Amino acid sequence: MAEALRKDFKIIGTRPVRPDGIPKVTGTAKFGADFSLPGTLFGKILRSPHAHARIRKIDTSKAAALPGVKAVITGADFPEQKNEFIGPERTAVNFWYMTRNIMAREKALYEGHAVAAVAASSPEIAEKAARLIEIDYEVLPHVIDVDAAMAPDAPLLFEDMTTRGVEPAPTRPTNVSKRLEFKLGDVEKGFADADIVLEKTYKTEAVHQGYIETHACLARYDADGQGELWSSSQGHFVVRNLTAKLLGMRLNDLKVNPAEIGGGFGGKTVVYLEPVAMLLSKKAGHPVRLAMTRAEVFKASGPTSGASITLKIGIKKDGTIIAGDAALRYQAGAVPGSPVMNGCLCIFACYAIPNQRAIGYDVVSNRPKVAAYRAPGSGIAAFAVESTLDILAKQIGMDPIELRLKNATRIGAPMLGGGKMSHEGFVQTLQAIRNHPAYSAPLGPNQGRGVASGYWFNGGGESGASVYVNADGTVVVSTGSPDIGGSRASMAMMAAETLGIPYDQVRAGVSDTTTVAYTHLTAGSRVTFATGLAVVGATNKVIEDLRARAAKIWGVDIEAVDWVDGCAKPSSSNVGKFEALTLKQLAAQASATGGPIGAAHAVNAAKQAPGFSTQLCDIEVDPETGRATVLRFVVAQDAGRAIHRSYVEGQMQGGAVQGIGWALNEEYIYDEKGRLANAGFLDYRMPVASDLPMIETVVVEVPNNDHPFGVKGVGEVNIVPTMAAVANAITAATGKRMSALPMSPPRLLEALGRPGKEV
Amino acid sequence: MAEALRKDFKIIGTRPVRPDGIPKVTGTAKFGADFSLPGTLFGKILRSPHAHARIRKIDTSKAAALPGVKAVITGADFPEQKNEFIGPERTAVNFWYMTRNIMAREKALYEGHAVAAVAASSPEIAEKAARLIEIDYEVLPHVIDVDAAMAPDAPLLFEDMTTRGVEPAPTRPTNVSKRLEFKLGDVEKGFADADIVLEKTYKTEAVHQGYIETHACLARYDADGQGELWSSSQGHFVVRNLTAKLLGMRLNDLKVNPAEIGGGFGGKTVVYLEPVAMLLSKKAGHPVRLAMTRAEVFKASGPTSGASITLKIGIKKDGTIIAGDAALRYQAGAVPGSPVMNGCLCIFACYAIPNQRAIGYDVVSNRPKVAAYRAPGSGIAAFAVESTLDILAKQIGMDPIELRLKNATRIGAPMLGGGKMSHEGFVQTLQAIRNHPAYSAPLGPNQGRGVASGYWFNGGGESGASVYVNADGTVVVSTGSPDIGGSRASMAMMAAETLGIPYDQVRAGVSDTTTVAYTHLTAGSRVTFATGLAVVGATNKVIEDLRARAAKIWGVDIEAVDWVDGCAKPSSSNVGKFEALTLKQLAAQASATGGPIGAAHAVNAAKQAPGFSTQLCDIEVDPETGRATVLRFVVAQDAGRAIHRSYVEGQMQGGAVQGIGWALNEEYIYDEKGRLANAGFLDYRMPVASDLPMIETVVVEVPNNDHPFGVKGVGEVNIVPTMAAVANAITAATGKRMSALPMSPPRLLEALGRPGKEV
Repeated sequence: MAEALRKDFKIIGTRPVRPDGIPKVTGTAKFGADFSLPGTLFGKILRSPHAHARIRKIDTSKAAALPGVKAVITGADFPEQKNEFIGPERTAVNFWYMTRNIMAREKALYEGHAVAAVAASSPEIAEKAARLIEIDYEVLPHVIDVDAAMAPDAPLLFEDMTTRGVEPAPTRPTNVSKRLEFKLGDVEKGFADADIVLEKTYKTEAVHQGYIETHACLARYDADGQGELWSSSQGHFVVRNLTAKLLGMRLNDLKVNPAEIGGGFGGKTVVYLEPVAMLLSKKAGHPVRLAMTRAEVFKASGPTSGASITLKIGIKKDGTIIAGDAALRYQAGAVPGSPVMNGCLCIFACYAIPNQRAIGYDVVSNRPKVAAYRAPGSGIAAFAVESTLDILAKQIGMDPIELRLKNATRIGAPMLGGGKMSHEGFVQTLQAIRNHPAYSAPLGPNQGRGVASGYWFNGGGESGASVYVNADGTVVVSTGSPDIGGSRASMAMMAAETLGIPYDQVRAGVSDTTTVAYTHLTAGSRVTFATGLAVVGATNKVIEDLRARAAKIWGVDIEAVDWVDGCAKPSSSNVGKFEALTLKQLAAQASATGGPIGAAHAVNAAKQAPGFSTQLCDIEVDPETGRATVLRFVVAQDAGRAIHRSYVEGQMQGGAVQGIGWALNEEYIYDEKGRLANAGFLDYRMPVASDLPMIETVVVEVPNNDHPFGVKGVGEVNIVPTMAAVANAITAATGKRMSALPMSPPRLLEALGRPGKEV
Repeated sequence: MAEALRKDFKIIGTRPVRPDGIPKVTGTAKFGADFSLPGTLFGKILRSPHAHARIRKIDTSKAAALPGVKAVITGADFPEQKNEFIGPERTAVNFWYMTRNIMAREKALYEGHAVAAVAASSPEIAEKAARLIEIDYEVLPHVIDVDAAMAPDAPLLFEDMTTRGVEPAPTRPTNVSKRLEFKLGDVEKGFADADIVLEKTYKTEAVHQGYIETHACLARYDADGQGELWSSSQGHFVVRNLTAKLLGMRLNDLKVNPAEIGGGFGGKTVVYLEPVAMLLSKKAGHPVRLAMTRAEVFKASGPTSGASITLKIGIKKDGTIIAGDAALRYQAGAVPGSPVMNGCLCIFACYAIPNQRAIGYDVVSNRPKVAAYRAPGSGIAAFAVESTLDILAKQIGMDPIELRLKNATRIGAPMLGGGKMSHEGFVQTLQAIRNHPAYSAPLGPNQGRGVASGYWFNGGGESGASVYVNADGTVVVSTGSPDIGGSRASMAMMAAETLGIPYDQVRAGVSDTTTVAYTHLTAGSRVTFATGLAVVGATNKVIEDLRARAAKIWGVDIEAVDWVDGCAKPSSSNVGKFEALTLKQLAAQASATGGPIGAAHAVNAAKQAPGFSTQLCDIEVDPETGRATVLRFVVAQDAGRAIHRSYVEGQMQGGAVQGIGWALNEEYIYDEKGRLANAGFLDYRMPVASDLPMIETVVVEVPNNDHPFGVKGVGEVNIVPTMAAVANAITAATGKRMSALPMSPPRLLEALGRPGKEV
């Protein structure tokens, strides 16, 4: 599509005021907890106080007898599911596990695991009723850490679980739910040919996405089997499909309405409360609202994996990386499903390494089931590989960006998991950082500079959109994608650019599950690309219709009408002399020329381009307190082409800030009973504005020719290099190599007090 | 379309359980007053206590100063509009008048006319603030009755209003806003050729639609000019367009959401509260909710016209109607716009009368502006013509149905206003009543039987719909038509029939103004016809897509695939041998064959067929109390083809019941100061279930070949003959001819006590 190479856009790349701003700052925007129906009940979930316990018996009779209580449910009230993984390996779903995570059955698998729920006429009654539920627990030994969970004598979460992906199929039960292996070339030979081989183990802690808005929903289940849901999520179609499956409903019987969403970052791609609220409503015969407290979010919604990675890299003295081998052990939480496959496929993806292998382990332990978190799995892997490359660059005395440029992947390079690198962009982010003034700015004492890079697939897939022209020539666009990162603005911009009309003539919104085609999650950096394609597709149908209307008015063939700059014009002087008809004029005549103008369009978008980011971090470490202060931070990222430049920059800044928190402070801390000790923002330390400098951004634009405007996804890759960039800066500042996250003041202080460079 | 003549439907004509039943009976359905946003304020409208008064000054300072008051507005806060009628004559709109009806400016024109409004943090504060608004009124003489308002010395509502439709344009101000004249043939000659000529004047009172749900809305107006509305209406697109125009907003800046609607019958086709709530929200910077009390509904929303009709009919002794001449004087209420044009065009429409004329007058008086009410204008006219025909039938000794059959209109008969009768159906309703056992059943003392017929245009116009196939093969349909008469069921039925799948695999809903093409009002009996065409159109696009998917799977051309009984099948044995693919199978493969399946479609539907109804009423009049009791009532109506038979019967029963109320009891009663004396259901007497027998229905089906299932609109014509049928029955029971409505006990008692047959 030659259009991607155009540079004369009128709207693409500008920064219109965000259309959702006023309701959000004035408080009228409706988030998940802001919905109500006449007669709505209040739900409350009772959660396990134990990290691991067999549920011998649940007695709900006292709770059910409390006046005002309308329903009490336990796991047994949900239909049983087949224990099978459905769908492609990367996104495989097993509803047997999912229903057990929604509500415990045989066992409580983590502190905070839902074991029962009540619906009552007031929140107070619901709380009281929950306390009246009597549960006979047999407390079991628990395991928290991923390496401990893999140990042969570890307590088992599922006594009959064996490891998938191993042939012949093993019979010994284990906490390793899956083993994956990918390779290219001859790894042994590669290491044999290397001048330097470095092997090192890295460790990261679980961190939570920390979205401001806790999970919340309102559910109505009617006696005739129809239901409706309102919830804040990253994909109401997925909420619908999962909830329907968990409750045995038909998809046409469940309508799910989107809400504003106060952050998701991957954590709102799954369901927690929705099936519970729905089942409570079914049993109670009234609508039910459920909302999590912050502590419930920490304890019972998914952070990303804590992980353990052993990485071995071999290089030539000239800096050529000749072999890489990685073993990635990712926490899945209480049921299978870590992003370890992503880790395996991303770990070496920035580099054209002839011999490489990645082995992944998906490991259950007594923690909340992990969920996606911004480029899930990739940042953990990048922490390992980008730290190692920093060490190796120093060892051979090579500039770390030079080392990366020398080995940078290029179009056609083979990749783990099959396929070849499809797009440029990585080299340009390296060059952007090398050419940035920050790269050569002086540093003071206790200060250091680090760089790192990262890769993310970026996603495509299914999206739907509709575009309608109003009688006054203004336009409304609607899609199935919840707007997290500014998609209402970018969709309106793409429609306006395509139509050739001003931005403020177009408004975009989000449709419910009955008024637009199935649209997959707002996740995987897919929305501007895939949903954008749906919007452009629908807009082009509208333009086709507008040309047909003009042709009708002029009495000519549609081929004789061009659409240029928001007007129908005769395609050549041969056609005849006609005054151009504007969109407004055509809209005013819509009734007479065939009725309302509009179109729907759906895509299953392929050919999304991957994302690359290279980042620079300047840090100062206080040798007395161990506190690391980020002095300067620059994010270079390939956006393909930025639609709304401010939102793109905001994504880049947001990813880096989250990565800085992950690098320096955030972690799940468990006590000896397997209970989360820091389930609140006072104890779980996320960076706030005063902790950080303004994050600088360099928007690299290497257009994706498979999108009409050249879009590549921009939402995720910006978190991938950050932990490594911070670690590399800390090494530069302190001479100490930190191989475990977070690099928090106590850990840094401990490292500074130790002899040697490696910690 | 030959399909209209099919008889082998699987779903069309059946009676599935209504899909909106459970939320309505359990109270979870959301009506206009059930919406809220965080920070919502409570609005209150201050209304004129005077029927007619000049507003010298409004002082809102004390109200504005009351703590908790966030906004106070008056008519001056609304932008001024041009004093011009826009659009085709039958639906012409004048926003200069409309904005003055929404809120008074120079004058209060009726008791209950909005003069100011407040928004405050509680309903109590809003009420108190409204009482603190000081208005300096100069009370003026008023006029209520339509004939009195036409008198030369009547108080004038608008000192510079002259009569439109008169040439040369008059200069003398008047309350007659418009004069219309339609004629066919030579009326003078027709009367000269007649054997019997009867002239008589009829009068009807204003009656209210009496919908259960009062007007209510929630409005949010943001500082950036964008707004959103939730309201219960017969057309949220029309609410959007009117509100935007009254406030000077762009259509893309105003999203309007539909609600469940607790009855409309024409009365919710306009706006009252929406622009007021929106402007209050704009001024207050918070969302505002407004709801009317029942008294406000009576005093300040539109009933239908009270009217005065002088009708002259000439017949031959053999029953041939040779001439008709009518003068129709309809109340418009305080600003122009009665349904008098409908009255003119309907009055003779059942009959092929060679010489006919109708002259209409649209007359303002100090009453609330009238709104549409079920076949607006036609029932008033039918009361006159069908009463007169009853008298004439008796005079020539002819059976009243015979008389009607002899003169019944037929395809091609010329009609007032141009055009010719396009469809059959009337004769069949007459035959249905004549053949009904009720027509020859015996009657007792003080009992009488009346019959009457009626005509209604039925409407078409603009509608949009979308149809999406879910991954499990179920289907969701959405349209822009608020569901008043069961359209969710009928749309799902039409989609299911078209797709060839069971009804419960399809659910239908109502889209907001941003997710479907512009859809005109749920009014004019247009929805099943026009919106039905949009649904069938969208469904056919889906079928086309399904055939293409099957063709792709089989590797054949789309022409080689037929869609039969919910399956893709090879079109002939030449194509190849393939197993039929069900919708469910194709839906499961949608991702792989191109992405989600769905389509949107819009129509500007023409060729709607008119509606005819003939009704029979048996009545008993108590000579001591004057109370008339309906003993038996039969409605025959041409439905073209009933989609959901129970809903069609319900429409027929509902129209007759409303007509019975209009005939016997309902009326607006004014005191000497022009104040409404019966603004509540205790004093404004509507029939309740215990007042009535079960209304019997005969669904006549003469398919409309211009709709794939033969649909004709069924919502309105059923009220048209009812007042005349009741009047004719009363004459039969008492020997008295009642020429004014309502025929209430006091009036009947008075008539019974008078000598002579005519009252």
